[in-house]
Amino acid sequence: MTPIASTPKPPYYAVIFTSLLTEDNNGYGDMADKMLTLAAAQPGFLGVESAREGIGITVSYWADLEAINNWKANAEHGEAQKLGREKWYASFKTRIAKVERDYGF
Amino acid sequence: MTPIASTPKPPYYAVIFTSLLTEDNNGYGDMADKMLTLAAAQPGFLGVESAREGIGITVSYWADLEAINNWKANAEHGEAQKLGREKWYASFKTRIAKVERDYGF
Repeated sequence: MTPIASTPKPPYYAVIFTSLLTEDNNGYGDMADKMLTLAAAQPGFLGVESAREGIGITVSYWADLEAINNWKANAEHGEAQKLGREKWYASFKTRIAKVERDYGF
Repeated sequence: MTPIASTPKPPYYAVIFTSLLTEDNNGYGDMADKMLTLAAAQPGFLGVESAREGIGITVSYWADLEAINNWKANAEHGEAQKLGREKWYASFKTRIAKVERDYGF
């Protein structure tokens, strides 16, 4: 379980990744864990929140678009994305969004 | 379970609401369902995705900031927010973000 991410004052960026899995989840959990660890080590990574309940929602937070583009182009991440499209994901949607305002307690 | 939301071509807005619940979940499920139904009836509502796995993540999509502000100010929603702060949520964060780009399959 991920906690609520501690992000800086806006503006920053969110990548909202929502997905539905196929029935072939062989290797998926290990790869997802590996990618979370690898993402967290990238320049500009600010935090991540993730939950799956039928639909999976992973929101990662980034300092700027350059950090997001670098992560998308990361070689190991590219391999994982390829396997995701081929095996694990029945469907997915990625949305790149600029966080303009936040509040909470 | 919510499916992946069918949203229009960007730009549009996302409200990323992440929360951790207290142990007092009395009435929470019914209220959450009621608020999803009510939100879906608001002008400018585009879709919603929601999952809870320890952390709860609900992303609602809206045509513009005015639609988001109107929903925040909705009287029934205001009552639900008050109960949420008093009873159900140990912590939460709301982030308002402008979706600039999306892709998927």
